[in-house]
Amino acid sequence: MVRITLELASKIVTATLQRRVELGFKPLCVAVLDPGGHLVAMQREDGASTLRPQIAMAKAGGALALGISSRKIAEMASERPTFIASLGPISPHGVVPAAGGVLIVDADGQLIGAVGVTGDTSDNDEACALAGIAAAGLSAVD
Amino acid sequence: MVRITLELASKIVTATLQRRVELGFKPLCVAVLDPGGHLVAMQREDGASTLRPQIAMAKAGGALALGISSRKIAEMASERPTFIASLGPISPHGVVPAAGGVLIVDADGQLIGAVGVTGDTSDNDEACALAGIAAAGLSAVD
Amino acid sequence: MVRITLELASKIVTATLQRRVELGFKPLCVAVLDPGGHLVAMQREDGASTLRPQIAMAKAGGALALGISSRKIAEMASERPTFIASLGPISPHGVVPAAGGVLIVDADGQLIGAVGVTGDTSDNDEACALAGIAAAGLSAVD
Amino acid sequence: MVRITLELASKIVTATLQRRVELGFKPLCVAVLDPGGHLVAMQREDGASTLRPQIAMAKAGGALALGISSRKIAEMASERPTFIASLGPISPHGVVPAAGGVLIVDADGQLIGAVGVTGDTSDNDEACALAGIAAAGLSAVD
Repeated sequence: MVRITLELASKIVTATLQRRVELGFKPLCVAVLDPGGHLVAMQREDGASTLRPQIAMAKAGGALALGISSRKIAEMASERPTFIASLGPISPHGVVPAAGGVLIVDADGQLIGAVGVTGDTSDNDEACALAGIAAAGLSAVD
Repeated sequence: MVRITLELASKIVTATLQRRVELGFKPLCVAVLDPGGHLVAMQREDGASTLRPQIAMAKAGGALALGISSRKIAEMASERPTFIASLGPISPHGVVPAAGGVLIVDADGQLIGAVGVTGDTSDNDEACALAGIAAAGLSAVD
Repeated sequence: MVRITLELASKIVTATLQRRVELGFKPLCVAVLDPGGHLVAMQREDGASTLRPQIAMAKAGGALALGISSRKIAEMASERPTFIASLGPISPHGVVPAAGGVLIVDADGQLIGAVGVTGDTSDNDEACALAGIAAAGLSAVD
Repeated sequence: MVRITLELASKIVTATLQRRVELGFKPLCVAVLDPGGHLVAMQREDGASTLRPQIAMAKAGGALALGISSRKIAEMASERPTFIASLGPISPHGVVPAAGGVLIVDADGQLIGAVGVTGDTSDNDEACALAGIAAAGLSAVD
């Protein structure tokens, strides 16, 4: 099983932000968490607002907490808003139901961590997260 | 870069409450925060209810946390209620999605703080906040 | 029964900070709370660090919560540290056991609010709070 | 006034971890915060335990909250343990009273942020933080 080393996490962060520059998106904040939901690496670009670190962690942390991407959590939230809202206060980093929190698996499909991105629209955030994961030679799962 | 000194913050508070008297609005509570979201000055008028300080801080603090006015946060909340609701538990002062939390910039457009006002309707709260910012020779941004 | 109006609270804040200038103390933060422990007025001087508003509120709020000055709470804390420590998490504003949180009574001895001051040593903080209360024509109680 | 850009924060993180390799210390976690206490960059080395990000943030964040290094906070904590303990619950990131949380100032002595390091002994943590700050051309203050 591959582990999300700091080296791998840094590759993900760098590639995520590189893609956001290529696409001309707004300044982003990226967080990479290990499978237990604990931070490995985080960067907040100049101009990204002050709550972005917590939002990035709560997208990625929420995805790990429920075992599905934050895009799917957003879909659940539109069907069952009170259920998803109830999870925030009992989750160490909160649960933010918006795309941009992506689960990472190794070649065997083992869950090894998650990336959370925030700062532009949720779709754009997620596009950068996916690019970051791919650049590190890893796979995303929904 | 201008800093929100106590002198400037006090001017904002005084002018905000002066405008509310001129307009005959209900008693208000005004909070002025530095760019990191920390209180510089706060006044609650006689008759304003007990949670008003927290609401004023959560309007201004939410605006700083997301980098947009609480009026815009209210618009986001009507489109994506579960997303905005999820930010409360992960934000130090909470996020109140209602007009009246206004970002302050200096002449160069640098974000230097925020004002939060509550007590009357959100539109009236915001009108007083804008008057307070203008009276201190500063500019509001959406 | 006298009520801590915003006018009275503002007098206390102004006189507290005036005394700190006379005595050459460090920049202070002053909070005035009503008898329910809710903020009426708060000012943080330039150079006072970012947690000062919370500390000022937790000195004054702890005093109201227990019905004794924060100087007495500090004495209790040295005798029964775990008891006082246990109160922080169950108190809305926390309980800071250090002098500078002073209860205010009217001429009939009725509890009408509290002042919390922080920024210099606890003794100096308290000296300014007492000067502020006296300047407003009110009395402190231990 | 210099701002802690992501570029500067990344330099601090890299140099801090470089020094820890040179000195053969245990795996570390480094957090760089802006003056409002908000994360700019964070890295946790392989083998550093799961709470390290929070400890790094609570060393640096506590230093900013009180305006003194976490080494000085540790000294205060040995004299007044209940006072320092009472600040944890009212501080957004907590307050960890142990060396390794260092305030950063620019050439004019303006407070521009803080570094928090944890993973080895507090003295070793602090030595790496100081090396990181110096490598970025900035100054530490006690």
